[in-house]
Amino acid sequence: MARWEGNTRGRLERAALDLFREQGYDRTTVAQIAQRAGLTERSFYRWFADKREVLFGGDDLEACYLPAIQAAPEGLGALPTLLTAFAATPQVLRPREFLIERATVIAATPPLRERELIKMVTLAEKLVAALIDRGHDEQTAHLATDIGTAILRLATTRWILGDDTDFTTLLATAHQDLRTVAAT
Amino acid sequence: MARWEGNTRGRLERAALDLFREQGYDRTTVAQIAQRAGLTERSFYRWFADKREVLFGGDDLEACYLPAIQAAPEGLGALPTLLTAFAATPQVLRPREFLIERATVIAATPPLRERELIKMVTLAEKLVAALIDRGHDEQTAHLATDIGTAILRLATTRWILGDDTDFTTLLATAHQDLRTVAAT
Repeated sequence: MARWEGNTRGRLERAALDLFREQGYDRTTVAQIAQRAGLTERSFYRWFADKREVLFGGDDLEACYLPAIQAAPEGLGALPTLLTAFAATPQVLRPREFLIERATVIAATPPLRERELIKMVTLAEKLVAALIDRGHDEQTAHLATDIGTAILRLATTRWILGDDTDFTTLLATAHQDLRTVAAT
Repeated sequence: MARWEGNTRGRLERAALDLFREQGYDRTTVAQIAQRAGLTERSFYRWFADKREVLFGGDDLEACYLPAIQAAPEGLGALPTLLTAFAATPQVLRPREFLIERATVIAATPPLRERELIKMVTLAEKLVAALIDRGHDEQTAHLATDIGTAILRLATTRWILGDDTDFTTLLATAHQDLRTVAAT
């Protein structure tokens, strides 16, 4: 994957985030985002289908996780397969400061929040399908995906909040915490 | 809570579901739903804000779960608190056949699917807040809610698929299955 900072897509994301913060999501146009990034509208549409997409980075996560799931050792359990994929693929390529601002803007903007939910559910469905492809039954695939995404969210939250432990360790700690809560 | 079958709201839900299946969600109007149910549009709006709401039963689940969480014994762990609330409040008041048809229509209708997601996330946020109110820390409250809703979904799926075990046992079995998947 390309480095984030300084590339065309990164500039568009940065410009969009700044404009959403300054003047609100509704009042911001694609033309303004492109202009602020010093690019053309055409460049914008090469990367994103519309304004709602600009903070969601295309299909990055899918493109990272699905091949990693397929490449996991045969016979690996459903949850370890997901955790291996999450650990092998840095889903946190953006600078932390950007992610914090992004989370704030999304939380305050209902259409972006809806888009994020749809993205998360779509990703989860693809994870379930990828596990079923590997021979796991449907209910196990669903449970492992629910558990795995809870672990991923907790590890990511801790990273964003400033924990600089390597991501594999953050995932392992979150997994242990989940087991502790589930055991009660 | 009122019995579902035969009441005004139940008739509107049944009529809406039938019309969505027969002619599609987009082509169905509130006037048609009311007419099919033998009621006025005014009756419709007494129960539901708009057409998108009709299959989602207002704030039933919240109204059941939140008081049950508040009433749980002091000192109970976060996950057991949720599971106690889920078991004490039958969230499956509708006839099974209705729920199966409802799930099919929602899955095939993007605006209903989005509404369902928003509802689920909103409910989850309220469960998290209710646990924090009881003194659990934020990360534990989130983890317990992620785990609890995964258990609830699995138990409900099994019930809809025809498992007539009592719901407390279905929850306990799903909890055990989750622990097994989480342990690997």
